[in-house]
Amino acid sequence: MRCDHQSSRSFQSAFLFSALLAGLLGSVVMAEAQEFKDLQKPKSPLLLKAQGSFFVGGEKVVQTEAELGSVGPAGHISINQMYVRYMVPEAGDSNVPVVMIHGATLTGKSWETTPDGRMGWDEYFVRRGHPVYVPDQVSRGRSGFNQAVFDNVRGGTAQPGVQPPFLRFSDEVVWPNFRFGPNQGVPYPDEQFPVAAVDELAMQSVPDMNRGLPIPNPNFKTLSDLAIQLKGAVLMGHSQGGIFPVGAALTDSTGIKGMVLVEPGSCPATYTDRQIATLATIPLLVVFGDHLGDTPSGIPGHSWQTAFDGCKAFISRVKAAGGKAQMLHPPDHGIRGNSHMIMQDKNNLQIADLILKWIDENVGKSKLSNK
Amino acid sequence: MRCDHQSSRSFQSAFLFSALLAGLLGSVVMAEAQEFKDLQKPKSPLLLKAQGSFFVGGEKVVQTEAELGSVGPAGHISINQMYVRYMVPEAGDSNVPVVMIHGATLTGKSWETTPDGRMGWDEYFVRRGHPVYVPDQVSRGRSGFNQAVFDNVRGGTAQPGVQPPFLRFSDEVVWPNFRFGPNQGVPYPDEQFPVAAVDELAMQSVPDMNRGLPIPNPNFKTLSDLAIQLKGAVLMGHSQGGIFPVGAALTDSTGIKGMVLVEPGSCPATYTDRQIATLATIPLLVVFGDHLGDTPSGIPGHSWQTAFDGCKAFISRVKAAGGKAQMLHPPDHGIRGNSHMIMQDKNNLQIADLILKWIDENVGKSKLSNK
Repeated sequence: MRCDHQSSRSFQSAFLFSALLAGLLGSVVMAEAQEFKDLQKPKSPLLLKAQGSFFVGGEKVVQTEAELGSVGPAGHISINQMYVRYMVPEAGDSNVPVVMIHGATLTGKSWETTPDGRMGWDEYFVRRGHPVYVPDQVSRGRSGFNQAVFDNVRGGTAQPGVQPPFLRFSDEVVWPNFRFGPNQGVPYPDEQFPVAAVDELAMQSVPDMNRGLPIPNPNFKTLSDLAIQLKGAVLMGHSQGGIFPVGAALTDSTGIKGMVLVEPGSCPATYTDRQIATLATIPLLVVFGDHLGDTPSGIPGHSWQTAFDGCKAFISRVKAAGGKAQMLHPPDHGIRGNSHMIMQDKNNLQIADLILKWIDENVGKSKLSNK
Repeated sequence: MRCDHQSSRSFQSAFLFSALLAGLLGSVVMAEAQEFKDLQKPKSPLLLKAQGSFFVGGEKVVQTEAELGSVGPAGHISINQMYVRYMVPEAGDSNVPVVMIHGATLTGKSWETTPDGRMGWDEYFVRRGHPVYVPDQVSRGRSGFNQAVFDNVRGGTAQPGVQPPFLRFSDEVVWPNFRFGPNQGVPYPDEQFPVAAVDELAMQSVPDMNRGLPIPNPNFKTLSDLAIQLKGAVLMGHSQGGIFPVGAALTDSTGIKGMVLVEPGSCPATYTDRQIATLATIPLLVVFGDHLGDTPSGIPGHSWQTAFDGCKAFISRVKAAGGKAQMLHPPDHGIRGNSHMIMQDKNNLQIADLILKWIDENVGKSKLSNK
């Protein structure tokens, strides 16, 4: 059941007007809520050696009764742990594991069933023989977050300004920023994102308090620890999490056998030559979809074309240091219309095949042991 | 990697002292962090017809740029949706689906791999032929929550006191309240919870803002909608979510073919005779573990013995109205030592078998169609 609040009336009017206007310019897609019946069952069953979930990282802190929401006595809680869900294929646990890290305001759900009910990359990579590990970033989703500052502000023992913001992207930001089309409700003619199900993507969003995380970001060490526990893994990150494989590798590269950066928000130019030398020991793939410069991104100061260009420069530096690094840009292969949510696009399995081929050729088919 | 903050030193000393004291009185268990290698692989593979995730419910609201954390323009977001993960066994999708709803400060993780790495009820019920659906409560985990009030307080447009509290239970609350033993770190001699892995349970905790939810609780309609979409399901709730099957049934009982209340916080005496008459049309099982009155619960004003007695009275009312309702109290079957986290206890599959038997006998082996 979806419905609009009364307070949204004026916004609706504005939306309807722009939709009408857009109708004169291109095709307008009206979003529809997914029904359970829309979930598509695969043609063959999934055979798993194991599945489940566990935690990595975490630390104990002591908090006051007020910091705990006054629901019982003060004491210890765990913060900064990372929830990880996993599936191990019956036939393939000798293949290299793949860890899939989501982006801003999202959770591990990004990699699961697509908004229009098709198979996600989590299951597809398992069916292609790889154990798959899907975390929620520290501070998001089932990993939880440190609530103390919010309860202190509520209780008057901290000033409101010390609360980190909870970030959410409006639908109006998502449409241009995720490159669904040139105007809200209007897809690009070759758009691959299943825009009729865009409201299902909106439901994947959770409040993001990354700006309240400690420095260094605990996700980096947690991910490098996870890779070591797995005795070698490919880390694949998306969007705001796109650079996390690099952050993890610069924390401890021991377990990291490959880095796949899917539409990273940026590839910083500030890495030192020594850091680049470390990164050059690990195969690197960067993936960007289509329409990178066709429309302003919707977030002031952000440009996907700039991110793409920065990542090409990053790849060049890694290669100059002797690394195996490359860009996967589907338009170069004649594949057009991919969005920022490329793992959910209508041709998501076609893109997955290109990444799987890269893993086979650059990381190896077999699980690698630790040094 | 787990470590204690410096600020916890004095607390540690107190803990060590009480642990030493407890050592004179009973067995002391030192908690250990789970290692990935602790995850136990099942003896036979899991064969799934389908698995994945989707959302139920949700509504669109319009929020200001500040309410969205000032990360982009104002606009629409989705709130009050419910994330649901599912697994459908290859052989058994004609059996009645089971929906497993977690309790306070927790997520759907409650039902997954146990803290000491054994199979959770989610997989076990699938292996016993039932499609299983595991939600995160609206406002928790991957379902997200409405962050607007927090960002308004941060921005100074709302007073701190309007923020709902984020609830967490300290380890010191959990031990007696979840009935692991009489004193922190000291288990009951027959304790069934895997207390050596208690720190893994601590990592399952996320901030709980249930007190900020609208009234009526959106979980009730969302769960009754889910049961209808599934064309009939058993709703099983735990602890704070223990009464949710009843709340869902009183919202719309159409899809609800059975209610299993696992250690509900309470069974209210305030239902009207008309409400009881509705509930009497649905088979009802209430499950409580052991040591209900042996130790104060750790939360002022709360008593598990009182909850148990209240649920016995509730069962009597439902039966008097012609319903099939019963209490499953393992000590009555000679099974001792079960905790509040009964789905994670060392004998969790033994308890699951008793619930599965009740479903077979009272709901039926076959999936039921809607009226």
